[in-house]
Amino acid sequence: MGSCLGYALLDGCDAAFSIDASSVTFGRGALSEIGEHARALGARRVALFTDRTLAALPPVDTARRALLAAGLDVAVYDDVRVEPTDASFLDAAAFAREGGFDTYVSVGGGSVIDTCKAALLYATYPADLAAYVNRPLGEGRPVPGPLPPHLACPTTTGTGSECTGIAIFDFRAHHAKTGIASRALRPTLALVDPTAAASLPAGVVAASGFDVLSHALESFTARPFSARARPDSPRARPMSQGRNPWSDLGCREALRLTGRYLVRAARDAADTEARDAMAWAATLAGIAFGNAGVHLPHAMSYALSGLRHDFHMPGYPAPFVPHGVAVILGAPAAFRALAATDPARHLEAATLLGADPADLRASAADPRAIGDLLADHLARMMQDAGLPNGASAVGYGEPDLRDLAAGTLAQARLIDNAPRPIAEDELTALFRSALTCW
Amino acid sequence: MGSCLGYALLDGCDAAFSIDASSVTFGRGALSEIGEHARALGARRVALFTDRTLAALPPVDTARRALLAAGLDVAVYDDVRVEPTDASFLDAAAFAREGGFDTYVSVGGGSVIDTCKAALLYATYPADLAAYVNRPLGEGRPVPGPLPPHLACPTTTGTGSECTGIAIFDFRAHHAKTGIASRALRPTLALVDPTAAASLPAGVVAASGFDVLSHALESFTARPFSARARPDSPRARPMSQGRNPWSDLGCREALRLTGRYLVRAARDAADTEARDAMAWAATLAGIAFGNAGVHLPHAMSYALSGLRHDFHMPGYPAPFVPHGVAVILGAPAAFRALAATDPARHLEAATLLGADPADLRASAADPRAIGDLLADHLARMMQDAGLPNGASAVGYGEPDLRDLAAGTLAQARLIDNAPRPIAEDELTALFRSALTCW
Repeated sequence: MGSCLGYALLDGCDAAFSIDASSVTFGRGALSEIGEHARALGARRVALFTDRTLAALPPVDTARRALLAAGLDVAVYDDVRVEPTDASFLDAAAFAREGGFDTYVSVGGGSVIDTCKAALLYATYPADLAAYVNRPLGEGRPVPGPLPPHLACPTTTGTGSECTGIAIFDFRAHHAKTGIASRALRPTLALVDPTAAASLPAGVVAASGFDVLSHALESFTARPFSARARPDSPRARPMSQGRNPWSDLGCREALRLTGRYLVRAARDAADTEARDAMAWAATLAGIAFGNAGVHLPHAMSYALSGLRHDFHMPGYPAPFVPHGVAVILGAPAAFRALAATDPARHLEAATLLGADPADLRASAADPRAIGDLLADHLARMMQDAGLPNGASAVGYGEPDLRDLAAGTLAQARLIDNAPRPIAEDELTALFRSALTCW
Repeated sequence: MGSCLGYALLDGCDAAFSIDASSVTFGRGALSEIGEHARALGARRVALFTDRTLAALPPVDTARRALLAAGLDVAVYDDVRVEPTDASFLDAAAFAREGGFDTYVSVGGGSVIDTCKAALLYATYPADLAAYVNRPLGEGRPVPGPLPPHLACPTTTGTGSECTGIAIFDFRAHHAKTGIASRALRPTLALVDPTAAASLPAGVVAASGFDVLSHALESFTARPFSARARPDSPRARPMSQGRNPWSDLGCREALRLTGRYLVRAARDAADTEARDAMAWAATLAGIAFGNAGVHLPHAMSYALSGLRHDFHMPGYPAPFVPHGVAVILGAPAAFRALAATDPARHLEAATLLGADPADLRASAADPRAIGDLLADHLARMMQDAGLPNGASAVGYGEPDLRDLAAGTLAQARLIDNAPRPIAEDELTALFRSALTCW
């Protein structure tokens, strides 16, 4: 069947990929334009979603003032739960349904933007929570029709949620993280203002920076779009379609930027060059992972953040395993194991992140050496940015390994997007190896 | 004011840029999916725009069959004029208005896609032709509201029109090329199937390849977004906002691909690796130039293609100066003159296109040497791809220079997007130098 743009084409597999990039406005001060953007979208009555901590900080004030200055009616919902749950999604949806809003604004991190997506969906097309949730935990029902405008304004340089149609939450009844995924949930406009993240503590910059790195590295190494079965119809082509030439482009630049700037941004709040670059890397990685999908380390993260809530990352208001920490804890072990699926690509990723190919422990032709180079470099970046040293540092031990592996396997959508199948025994071994990273 | 992502921020100038990427599906065979895409967009009665030559070729047949197989009603308009005029736009609009269509499909090169944009606009919101045309030749009236779905399927690897909100035509009453530019005109979906260009003659591949190269090189070297006056409102931020970190990303990859594959694609129709790569480069350059805008060589091209219609490029059905030829004839002279505005960036562009920095005639610190390196490399690529040797080879001489300069200056939107102002005398000199390229 030949190849196209370096991707092997296979009988019965897909031969096309899609691009649905978000609308984004990026720049210092962009948040103050939100009133005019909202008015241009026909807004009259706006729901502004945020959380209790952010409600008192400058970005929310800037957004609220700009909306009022544009003559709009604004109601603030600041009850967003960090690491949302089914209950917190439903509470937000009740606020949305009762408020009679025509436009939604979210100012915050991934939890805020995701909660806003869920709230406007369930307020517009009321249903049981499970209705739109991904299978197998939910019914996976498609979004029935158009949704009201949503302007998403990230205040962390990490989530990428402003560019994706995904909303993640902790489904308490099932003791598992899952989500809602639909192109219809993609925000109408992402307003990315790097100054909105200026006051973030170092720990939050570090954790959200590793979320960016994970989006880029997993999207860059996901199963190729051309290895997925050909869909019955182009409408059945999934959002997480696997890596492809479009996602590769954003991933390469995001990897280069995180390699150069993540540790600097975490170490020095005054390093605006690094902080701006991380905001841009987050946007690019968000566009890329909304297009390609993440895989094994994200699947591992949902198990890692679901079972322990007593680790307290500096800079966060409460004890829990922040998403950006959870996604990177398993990454060194995962990439050490997966590099052999495409050694050249993993070597390129390591080099973009700043690893020196001269440090290869063995011949560059040995895929194990490439996996080690990438894994060791990730561990070094984690150490330099002040992250915990592996799963043991957030409270896990040998007795938890089987539960962690089982929780990971439940993330079928993500596991399917990995470059090769992974069995439960191997997952248990990966978590064992992830107990310490250096 | 500092800088952001390498762009200097200046008092009174813009500090934000926007991204409005198209929806694209790219891949071999993607054209056969058009029926299902159209039905998903609610189509029942479809107008299929193409030209007389294409009407008998496989891509139109593939699209028509796929639309019929999806149960849709299809009427073909194959009267599109290559290099459209005000009269041909109006004729297409009359067809669209009378047909009662709910969905539009264009299968062809830039002329076909642009004509379809104009037809659906004037059929939906009837007005005098001048109403929506760019100032100063037209009134520049905004598109009044939403437009019906448009699925654009390029059959040349060049135009980029499938990703932009621009439609160009020859305004005969004014003896000038101009256009209509609105985000609302951007096609709903670009279906880019590299096999649709498989039967293109070498001359068309070469000319459209230089259109790709020009989109990428001009967008990469346009005036920075951060050197444009701050708009009164974010809605006033133009589509052609100047170069920015988003357009830079697509431009770099498109330059690398055209440097590597343009001449190969033009020389060997069986080189599918090169032809696929040029189709992808055209898409990336289209996204980039729809976001940043082109500048001086495109402005010069409208004068060069407007005044002479007796040159016959091999592979084209009639004598005229094809757009892809016109845009590159003035490029060596233009970049020789403009490289000093940002020597490092022009050196990077030359290197991405395949020039060897070791060929610099003088010190790399000398901007003239960089302009020469880039210009000489462009001329070599033109020669290798079988393009005419400068404006004299398409029929121009010393007596035409002042008219060419005046025609170029009339393209105010493009001239304003150049990295520095250009006076009429300098333009005359540039056209003199463009009479021969090697």
